[in-house]
Amino acid sequence: MKNLVDTKQLSKPELVTLLERARYWEEHWRPGCKRFQGQFAANLFFEPSTRTRFSFEVAEKRLGMEVINFTPEVSSTAKGETLYDTVKTLASVGVEVAVIRHSDPEAFLNLTVQEPGCALINAGAGCYAHPTQALLDLYTMVKQFGDLTGKKVAVVGDIRHSRVVRSNIWTLKQFGAEMMVSGPASMRDDEVEKMVPYVPFAEALQTADVVMMLRVQLERHHQKLFSSATEYHQQYGLTREKAAMLKPGAIIMHPGPVNRGVEIADEVVEHPSSRIFDQMTNGVWVRMAVIERALGGVN
Amino acid sequence: MKNLVDTKQLSKPELVTLLERARYWEEHWRPGCKRFQGQFAANLFFEPSTRTRFSFEVAEKRLGMEVINFTPEVSSTAKGETLYDTVKTLASVGVEVAVIRHSDPEAFLNLTVQEPGCALINAGAGCYAHPTQALLDLYTMVKQFGDLTGKKVAVVGDIRHSRVVRSNIWTLKQFGAEMMVSGPASMRDDEVEKMVPYVPFAEALQTADVVMMLRVQLERHHQKLFSSATEYHQQYGLTREKAAMLKPGAIIMHPGPVNRGVEIADEVVEHPSSRIFDQMTNGVWVRMAVIERALGGVN
Amino acid sequence: MKNLVDTKQLSKPELVTLLERARYWEEHWRPGCKRFQGQFAANLFFEPSTRTRFSFEVAEKRLGMEVINFTPEVSSTAKGETLYDTVKTLASVGVEVAVIRHSDPEAFLNLTVQEPGCALINAGAGCYAHPTQALLDLYTMVKQFGDLTGKKVAVVGDIRHSRVVRSNIWTLKQFGAEMMVSGPASMRDDEVEKMVPYVPFAEALQTADVVMMLRVQLERHHQKLFSSATEYHQQYGLTREKAAMLKPGAIIMHPGPVNRGVEIADEVVEHPSSRIFDQMTNGVWVRMAVIERALGGVN
Repeated sequence: MKNLVDTKQLSKPELVTLLERARYWEEHWRPGCKRFQGQFAANLFFEPSTRTRFSFEVAEKRLGMEVINFTPEVSSTAKGETLYDTVKTLASVGVEVAVIRHSDPEAFLNLTVQEPGCALINAGAGCYAHPTQALLDLYTMVKQFGDLTGKKVAVVGDIRHSRVVRSNIWTLKQFGAEMMVSGPASMRDDEVEKMVPYVPFAEALQTADVVMMLRVQLERHHQKLFSSATEYHQQYGLTREKAAMLKPGAIIMHPGPVNRGVEIADEVVEHPSSRIFDQMTNGVWVRMAVIERALGGVN
Repeated sequence: MKNLVDTKQLSKPELVTLLERARYWEEHWRPGCKRFQGQFAANLFFEPSTRTRFSFEVAEKRLGMEVINFTPEVSSTAKGETLYDTVKTLASVGVEVAVIRHSDPEAFLNLTVQEPGCALINAGAGCYAHPTQALLDLYTMVKQFGDLTGKKVAVVGDIRHSRVVRSNIWTLKQFGAEMMVSGPASMRDDEVEKMVPYVPFAEALQTADVVMMLRVQLERHHQKLFSSATEYHQQYGLTREKAAMLKPGAIIMHPGPVNRGVEIADEVVEHPSSRIFDQMTNGVWVRMAVIERALGGVN
Repeated sequence: MKNLVDTKQLSKPELVTLLERARYWEEHWRPGCKRFQGQFAANLFFEPSTRTRFSFEVAEKRLGMEVINFTPEVSSTAKGETLYDTVKTLASVGVEVAVIRHSDPEAFLNLTVQEPGCALINAGAGCYAHPTQALLDLYTMVKQFGDLTGKKVAVVGDIRHSRVVRSNIWTLKQFGAEMMVSGPASMRDDEVEKMVPYVPFAEALQTADVVMMLRVQLERHHQKLFSSATEYHQQYGLTREKAAMLKPGAIIMHPGPVNRGVEIADEVVEHPSSRIFDQMTNGVWVRMAVIERALGGVN
């Protein structure tokens, strides 16, 4: 059993294998697949989620797995049980892979050290990492461009609080893409900028092959940002006018859920250059590859 | 893919086909059915539900489908995601039919215009429509009486706030039944009475072949009605004495959940003339037919 | 269909059969098992649970069943529907076995009298009974010791509020084991002590073949006990020092979830003598046997 903590643990050959397996499943999966028939996966989401949560559930079921959906509110977590004891309990009743989203990145990391008896997949850990998002982003770009060498990827918005950007830096570097970040000064991040350059938004729009807009987390920063959502949209939102500045062949991405009218205009979400909903479709194939790896790999 | 918005969109031949398919499933379904094996249905219930919710889940699973249960509280809806983006997300990860209950009837209607990429089934929309309830009511009556021509159906209770009565008017008319409504003055509805006559409760009881009691929605009207639940029961409740006034062969129906001792007496719920729990059983076969239609029909 | 209300209803031969069937499933179950394919189980948990809840779900799915997970908060229970009507509704849409945890023991007992149309399995009823826990405890001990005649089982802790101890008294007696209880004076129970002797904690530790530590229900008694959790641990907790007092070959059990550092020390939970997580694994096989019995037994 192999855990997935972050993309940083994955070598280039491992990344290539994951992409190949994602493509394999996309091309060859058929209803009635029994790849992991009778084996159990558990989804433990300690934060709200739609796309990651259901993307994993579809991936598990397409592989023939049985799925346990753990909800903290109605479980022994409500009685103070530790995360380790909860996951060890699930492993004890037969769960072989646990998909976990938790607000505290330490919680997931500690768990991998404690070894509760099943494979662990990180489905988003605070601001720290979101490896399957980075993998589906990578898969989406490779499907679009083939070779990523020299391709420019601009990530725009709340860099500081993004678990997506951190996980993407490593994977894109392995494939020879050049990342840059942009966005308001208040959302810049020193640590990230040690690795990738900050550029003005206009430069990002004009030079990038991929413009990845990040979600403004209104629910976390509403004191600071909610009153200026309109202002944010005018300055850093991907409006129709700004989308017209993109290079020919450039694509628009977003990890979702989108704030329509804030970081991206309503009508740009399904722009011809947008791959936002394709990303979600690709996420299922990528997660099938990740689960397959967790349960022992291709053979 | 065909949406189901309301019964009004269904022609007589379409209604007949749905009833035939419901009967087909009731007679021929066997465990291990793979009719839609490996295809995904999602249930999105934005209001509490037991019978509709689980009736659909059983219907989906009996057809061999995989089921995604969406709970608004722990999803990106909590982060402000629109209904369209949520359903489009589910469609993007592979969901082919979405069953939706929402308090706002406009929400469902808008969705059908926006076309999020999967078939949409209305599982109850505010006071507006509840088409699968009307279909299971119709199926229950046809199983009981065969030809409905000239049969009298009395719907009694909170006509104004009922999504059931509106959806039933059209289907019963197509099959030649005569509907009437009854209940307290405060719950009468002008729009409904343009289509069907209002009669006193005693007349309804003595002339109807079907007495359909509606739920008093205590949770919505508790200021007005809760203090007078006993009074309601005495005047408009189906007591054992009132049930004795029914014509020979007449049946009692109720969409559930029942308020025992309010609109219907405790001991009348399972009266020999009651078809209340049969309605629920019939609902599964009817919903299998509706899902089959949504996914492309019989062939 | 056979209900499971409490262990007291089970004769010695019935207990032996359940253990044999648990062992059968442990030895012979393979992925793809279709024992009850296409039949529906429903899990209704009106109190939080992790191990019992998911143990049942895994057991049901390993038997090939389809599973309905009922959550009171988003169901018609929120509209005031009775437990009987809820379960009768589930039975009407096709559920053949309902697994129920409820805080009110009368609620489950009443239901068995009302006969809602499906088999009923008690998954924990207030302080009254928790029969499948007692059965998995029994199975764990029989796997450990073979013949239980003369074996000494010490149950330690909150005897008064334990649904586990009451269900265990009967089963252990049938197999010739000798139970004793221990713990703080404030948690002793007159009714239990009419059946089994109370002994000092030190004596329990030194003479028992099985030390079963009970959960201190901090969530129920926090006024009285939370301030003295440390004190409780010192006096009645199974510390490493106290675990060293156990007889050679003695084992440690706990129904879970554990309060690490209260009734049991952190490092003792996975002590070589601990069978705490084995209990959970065994619980799945035992519950498969219980479900099989509910649906008509071995043949």
